Amino acid sequence: MQISINLNPDSKQSLQSQVFESIREQILSGRLKSGMLMPSTRMLNEQLGVSRNTIILAYDRLIAEGYLYSKETVGTFVNPNLPEDSLMLMEDTLKYLGDLSENTIQKINKNTSKRHPVAFQGRVQDLFNPFHDQLEIDFWVGRPDPESFPINIWRQLTLKKLSHSGSSMTEYHDAAGIFELRKAIAEHLRPARGIDCDPEQIIIVNGIQEGLNVVARVLIKQDTLAVMECPCYQGAAYTLESYGAKLIPVPVDKEGLNVKKLPDKKIGLAYVTPSHQYPLGATLPLERRVRLLDWARETGAYIVEDDYDSDFRHQGSPLTAVAGQDKNGYVIYMGTFSKSIGAALRLGYIVLPTELVGPARTAKALMDNGHSWLDQAVLTEFITSGAYVKHLRRIRRKYLNRRDSLVKALQKYFGNIKLSGLEGGMHLVWHMPDSLPESKEVQKIAQDIGVGVYSLPAAAAHDFGKKRYSKRNLLFGYSSTSKEQIVDGISRLAKELK
Amino acid sequence: MQISINLNPDSKQSLQSQVFESIREQILSGRLKSGMLMPSTRMLNEQLGVSRNTIILAYDRLIAEGYLYSKETVGTFVNPNLPEDSLMLMEDTLKYLGDLSENTIQKINKNTSKRHPVAFQGRVQDLFNPFHDQLEIDFWVGRPDPESFPINIWRQLTLKKLSHSGSSMTEYHDAAGIFELRKAIAEHLRPARGIDCDPEQIIIVNGIQEGLNVVARVLIKQDTLAVMECPCYQGAAYTLESYGAKLIPVPVDKEGLNVKKLPDKKIGLAYVTPSHQYPLGATLPLERRVRLLDWARETGAYIVEDDYDSDFRHQGSPLTAVAGQDKNGYVIYMGTFSKSIGAALRLGYIVLPTELVGPARTAKALMDNGHSWLDQAVLTEFITSGAYVKHLRRIRRKYLNRRDSLVKALQKYFGNIKLSGLEGGMHLVWHMPDSLPESKEVQKIAQDIGVGVYSLPAAAAHDFGKKRYSKRNLLFGYSSTSKEQIVDGISRLAKELK
Repeated sequence: MQISINLNPDSKQSLQSQVFESIREQILSGRLKSGMLMPSTRMLNEQLGVSRNTIILAYDRLIAEGYLYSKETVGTFVNPNLPEDSLMLMEDTLKYLGDLSENTIQKINKNTSKRHPVAFQGRVQDLFNPFHDQLEIDFWVGRPDPESFPINIWRQLTLKKLSHSGSSMTEYHDAAGIFELRKAIAEHLRPARGIDCDPEQIIIVNGIQEGLNVVARVLIKQDTLAVMECPCYQGAAYTLESYGAKLIPVPVDKEGLNVKKLPDKKIGLAYVTPSHQYPLGATLPLERRVRLLDWARETGAYIVEDDYDSDFRHQGSPLTAVAGQDKNGYVIYMGTFSKSIGAALRLGYIVLPTELVGPARTAKALMDNGHSWLDQAVLTEFITSGAYVKHLRRIRRKYLNRRDSLVKALQKYFGNIKLSGLEGGMHLVWHMPDSLPESKEVQKIAQDIGVGVYSLPAAAAHDFGKKRYSKRNLLFGYSSTSKEQIVDGISRLAKELK
Repeated sequence: MQISINLNPDSKQSLQSQVFESIREQILSGRLKSGMLMPSTRMLNEQLGVSRNTIILAYDRLIAEGYLYSKETVGTFVNPNLPEDSLMLMEDTLKYLGDLSENTIQKINKNTSKRHPVAFQGRVQDLFNPFHDQLEIDFWVGRPDPESFPINIWRQLTLKKLSHSGSSMTEYHDAAGIFELRKAIAEHLRPARGIDCDPEQIIIVNGIQEGLNVVARVLIKQDTLAVMECPCYQGAAYTLESYGAKLIPVPVDKEGLNVKKLPDKKIGLAYVTPSHQYPLGATLPLERRVRLLDWARETGAYIVEDDYDSDFRHQGSPLTAVAGQDKNGYVIYMGTFSKSIGAALRLGYIVLPTELVGPARTAKALMDNGHSWLDQAVLTEFITSGAYVKHLRRIRRKYLNRRDSLVKALQKYFGNIKLSGLEGGMHLVWHMPDSLPESKEVQKIAQDIGVGVYSLPAAAAHDFGKKRYSKRNLLFGYSSTSKEQIVDGISRLAKELK
């Protein structure tokens, strides 16, 4: 007997694997039937004109994988134990099968439609600017200055860590993060953010986004109530909602979260950005912080403090975090190195009240087995050597200068305008007067002249359908634009808007 | 007026920050009341005997943070807007407060007990051997050989990637992984595992553990049925169960999953380890693979193929993965570099049927914003340069030799014994005869003489309470022990057991 095999000598696939694939496919599609005698390797080598060894090796593999079955002195057969009327028939091979019964075809059609449904209906935060490549000057938000990455010291430290670390690279480490890094962070947080915590309370995460997942897994069930700032960061809203939380938006005014409007209900958690409200930029004043902590204590809610860009404080002294003001363990604190060092590092941390440490460590280990050892080890030494504090000082100065250039340029071209978010961070907000078009439209106009400025929804902010926030606010990130670009960008925008 | 401040000149804290902390704490605890006039900086400097500048800086910070309020020419006050009867009173400061009303104390006690409950009641896989440090010879499972980590090439590639990558390090990258790495994996999978996929179907994950979470988020709702091999890998069982799945254990026999016992129900997914069943080591034969795929098609269930250690195939040719045999998109394939390169790298991948790509990318991005760029970039070049295939060849040979040494040693000391899991992977299983104690006890006996061998539950295997699996099976990982250690360990064990 002969079987049909087409070989392509120009293919990247070896002849042996073409023979293997072809026979395998014919068995799976039912063209070569269970128990059928196969042509001998000699016959096939003559038929195909390839070396007998090629055929033998292909047969060997087919036998090893169970497609063929060899009976000594008798011959080689298609495995007789394969299911007769296999449903593995490939849709795209049906066309070869003229002899397929009506019954089988119906069975196939019926079966393709009963796939298990997708349980997940989430939406996702926008971290990328889809128009970035079309822009000459981009005020995209939350992007550190690429020139400021401490590349030399990073190379040095990486080499050092890789000099004697075979076993460090091959082993699993603590899913909550290597202890030395947690210790370094705890020691950094005390003077920097007024937080007094034990390294055991710290879990290293991939970034605040993963931190939110750990918190959600620990605290959120279907219909758990979660207070959100309105407007707030998309990533937080979408994540909590994806775990079944019911979100309760509480309005933000010029001082940040309006704590008087906090609901008097059984709340699971409140997600807040007190250092530099995202997106509107306010720093929550002490009275509101105290009321927020009182409220947490009254309702039993946890406060999730997202301190994403607190490393950059442009006015006044560094503020104590709400977590540093809370002595009762109601605050879950989240920090990140994405803004201060680089987002591609993928390292951040959460600091937990003691009673949540156990469940959160378990949730984290179930989510993943911790992070790249090399990155953690390099970061640890970057912090403990003092290089991190120096690096922060350097970029703080840089960002402050850029903020000042931006404010000056905006005032020069647009006069006496309403800005917010100046006290810290990496972006500011312009509350545009009614004489100008709506934010979305200004964004579009700017984009057409190669300048990136952003309305709330375009900058990963979520307004819960309260459009008044999104209509007149325009966001400017200034951390990754030079002074010249800032002045140029604003003057272009002014020319276009007038 | 005077306020009480105790300064400790020997403290690591500066005097200025001691003054700040002390006043702040007294305000928060209510000892310094809202609206109260503070002593002048001159008075305090005399009282405390520290420089006036120290006091001025501390006051400035207290004013900046909103604790104090300064009225020109009048004086400095405790912020009058702070809530009067603040509940922020710290438990550990109560002892200072003799004048606390009974009412307030009750309020405090009541409030500490109404904290939002923890929603999460998960359990976690054991990846660490708690006794490792007490062992001289450790047959721990799934641990790559530390000596084999390709440290020189890793250093070279890392330096290369860090030579011009400020912006690569500071920016966010695709949460599904950098495209070049997904492409390299797709190209590796075709010859290595017979899987023909597009880079778009691949999502880079932190390891199979995270892969399981992505799958669970996409496919599992409360009470979704999930078929598990019995016994199986703890991490998979605990993860799926933590998302609300109902687990249906299907027994494993000497050929792997007994596909005849697959339930005829509406199943969400079946989690399987066909290349080298974890923990028992069988390679699923082709007939069973075909039946498994047929079953998936009949029930609509997805098959989650965990191919954790398939890089090490000691007998016969490399097997095509079930995902390579499936042409209908029922298989979700999961692979990892934890076993083949190093677990500390924290990189693995999942290959998804096309209709799941969208939801899985969303779920992944909500879980975290992707992985360390540097590690991904280095790994990409490690694969595309051909170094990965060479590395695999080298350690494959090493592990095969170690397996042979282990089998020989076991046969030498224990005679004609029943072993399984020899065809591939990094561990084998000894089904001990009834003449020997139960696995748990043998593990203990071995541990006492500095040798690590493992019963199923100790090696992160889950038996669903079916103790017969766990009683007589003993696991030996051989990938991180030298030939000498293997022989020594088995001879010691034999001496002790006889």
